[in-house]
Amino acid sequence: MFTFKTIKKSKNSRARLGIITTPHGKINTPNISIIGTKGAIRGISFKKARKFGAQIFMINTFHFFHNNRFKIVKKFGGLHKFLGVDYPLMTDSGGFQVFSLGFGKEQGVGKIASIFPEESKNSISGAKFKNKNLVKIYEDGVEFISPYNGDRMFLSPSKSIMIQKILGADIIFTFDECTSPLADYEYTKLAMKRTHRWAIKCLETFRKSKNQVLFGIVQGGQYEDLRKESAKFINSLPFFGFGIGGSLGKTKKDMIKVLDWTITNLDENKPRHLLGIGEVDDIFNAIEQGVDLFDCVIPTRWARHGTAFTYQGRLNLKKSKLLSDKKPIDPKCSCEVCKRYSRAYVCHLLKEKEIYGIMLLVEHNVFWILKLFKEIRRALREEKFEVLKRTIIRKYQT
Amino acid sequence: MFTFKTIKKSKNSRARLGIITTPHGKINTPNISIIGTKGAIRGISFKKARKFGAQIFMINTFHFFHNNRFKIVKKFGGLHKFLGVDYPLMTDSGGFQVFSLGFGKEQGVGKIASIFPEESKNSISGAKFKNKNLVKIYEDGVEFISPYNGDRMFLSPSKSIMIQKILGADIIFTFDECTSPLADYEYTKLAMKRTHRWAIKCLETFRKSKNQVLFGIVQGGQYEDLRKESAKFINSLPFFGFGIGGSLGKTKKDMIKVLDWTITNLDENKPRHLLGIGEVDDIFNAIEQGVDLFDCVIPTRWARHGTAFTYQGRLNLKKSKLLSDKKPIDPKCSCEVCKRYSRAYVCHLLKEKEIYGIMLLVEHNVFWILKLFKEIRRALREEKFEVLKRTIIRKYQT
Repeated sequence: MFTFKTIKKSKNSRARLGIITTPHGKINTPNISIIGTKGAIRGISFKKARKFGAQIFMINTFHFFHNNRFKIVKKFGGLHKFLGVDYPLMTDSGGFQVFSLGFGKEQGVGKIASIFPEESKNSISGAKFKNKNLVKIYEDGVEFISPYNGDRMFLSPSKSIMIQKILGADIIFTFDECTSPLADYEYTKLAMKRTHRWAIKCLETFRKSKNQVLFGIVQGGQYEDLRKESAKFINSLPFFGFGIGGSLGKTKKDMIKVLDWTITNLDENKPRHLLGIGEVDDIFNAIEQGVDLFDCVIPTRWARHGTAFTYQGRLNLKKSKLLSDKKPIDPKCSCEVCKRYSRAYVCHLLKEKEIYGIMLLVEHNVFWILKLFKEIRRALREEKFEVLKRTIIRKYQT
Repeated sequence: MFTFKTIKKSKNSRARLGIITTPHGKINTPNISIIGTKGAIRGISFKKARKFGAQIFMINTFHFFHNNRFKIVKKFGGLHKFLGVDYPLMTDSGGFQVFSLGFGKEQGVGKIASIFPEESKNSISGAKFKNKNLVKIYEDGVEFISPYNGDRMFLSPSKSIMIQKILGADIIFTFDECTSPLADYEYTKLAMKRTHRWAIKCLETFRKSKNQVLFGIVQGGQYEDLRKESAKFINSLPFFGFGIGGSLGKTKKDMIKVLDWTITNLDENKPRHLLGIGEVDDIFNAIEQGVDLFDCVIPTRWARHGTAFTYQGRLNLKKSKLLSDKKPIDPKCSCEVCKRYSRAYVCHLLKEKEIYGIMLLVEHNVFWILKLFKEIRRALREEKFEVLKRTIIRKYQT
């Protein structure tokens, strides 16, 4: 039921067009997985995103694990039925959230407040657990304290895969140790080796399945020899595709190098997913390195903070001067929001903290990013990728 | 451009079927105005509510007055253009919100927290102004302290009408003094007399308009002679229709009496709007007394608190036992939410504080209440109103 085919390769880079076929439909690559963290996109329906051209959605295993909600999903026969959708879905392993709890608290990186933006206001995470060692890593898994209720919990490679099998997404990921950008060489190496042993455990638990495929995650941080070693090791195992996880270095240029070290050591007949990356300039640079799939919270998170994608760069719609701006959010955008509403109206709603303001902005941003990927695929077909990149990227270089 | 016609009168009560024609379309009565407080429904688009059969929407003048936002709307040529809709709209006068600030704080009735549920968390209203005299009533208007920023503000009959003319809704209301349910006879009488003088001021400011009609508001609290006097006085002035405002007594039975005293003294050739009422049993009782139009925050406010209308009574979707309930919110409902999603999914989203859970519940509740009004109109056509009332009301008697 699952296949991956490369349709066309760019003459100028490792960028390529491909098609992933799943039991719930195909995904034209390069593409982006729209995030539905807890089983819903924050502001629009899956159906609407699908209408805009979304071909795959990412649900976070952690948010169905910590509260045992996966047991409810099991009664429904999986996420597709629970969410009422028949589109391709992917789940991550829960590892990123668990390890972020660790290095977030210890090193002040990737703070809980940004990992759990909604909950941090109401939960005890922010205050109670400050400076506590939230995460303990063992050979067979990770013990951590729930940021929601303080419960001691345990997640392991086999447990993550068992939960992901219950959730039943089309594409699932191995449970890896996601290291901090501040981790040193020695620690990154140690964690990478453990991630490799866990990858084997995940494969053992996963076995073959007609309804799901497993992507193995490459680690190794920003260290050349580790990234290469990890890519070669994960490449040697029978995964359907690859995830590229962990620290990609300290600068955007580092990311390009890390992707180069990684992807040149991966089987080109398998799809490559870059986990959690999605700034506009990063997308173009990563596609040039050979990345096929992305997932990123930016379209919805920016919307919640009042920021829109536009072809002229990002636009902060909370600025008071926009209150009398009759133009649409993006005059070059053809979404319903831009056809129907002014910046003034959206700005008014955001200032008044109206939920509908966020709904409009999420709709625009999701439409916009999906449209960008359609343009990227067309540009690759027509050998115009570099032109498109130059046009768009200078508005988004950060 | 504006007409009101009675199509059919019930044999058993003052209930009736009618049609209000406006430049933006007709409204079949009895009907309910869906609330878009600050220019948006809290969770769905006007367009979607329109698709569900909504024929008129209520925007609150106060929320475009206190922040001078009506000056922005003016630049756009009115609310219809600012909101991007061409449906019939109504605005209230801002009086209810201003006077609620007064008796809310002084008598602990209608607390600010419930009048400004969203803002009270962030604003200084709750804490800073506690027990302060927020409202001072003069012959020519009302001085009050903004619950948003503490500014001293002034609203008057002519100012309210001028702002409502700028906002440009099809149906607008006179600026009345809305008295507290705890106001005594003497004060209610004094306030009623002032409301009558203000009604004349409103008419003077309003003059004739092709694009708007003015409804005069009857006051008089729960006192029989005052209600009758007020109804007769407002009835003597050239309003297009009537609003029934102020205290309707202490019990649901009181409301029926107050409506009886009022409506028997109003020209039956003009439409009657009952302000701010919308519990299911109240709707049936008021229609029997001859009410044509309602507006009420209940469909959206209940949704934000996790409560759904169903034909089996109200349903609290936050209850944990619903987490594995595969039934739709209301098995007898034909809305998209009930066709597509389970109680379990909605319950899960509400527990996780996902915005999409509220969106689904608002969609269901707005659909459901509009459907109820369609059924009410059909029942009136077929002389089956009393049967429908008995069936529905016993699930909603409070």
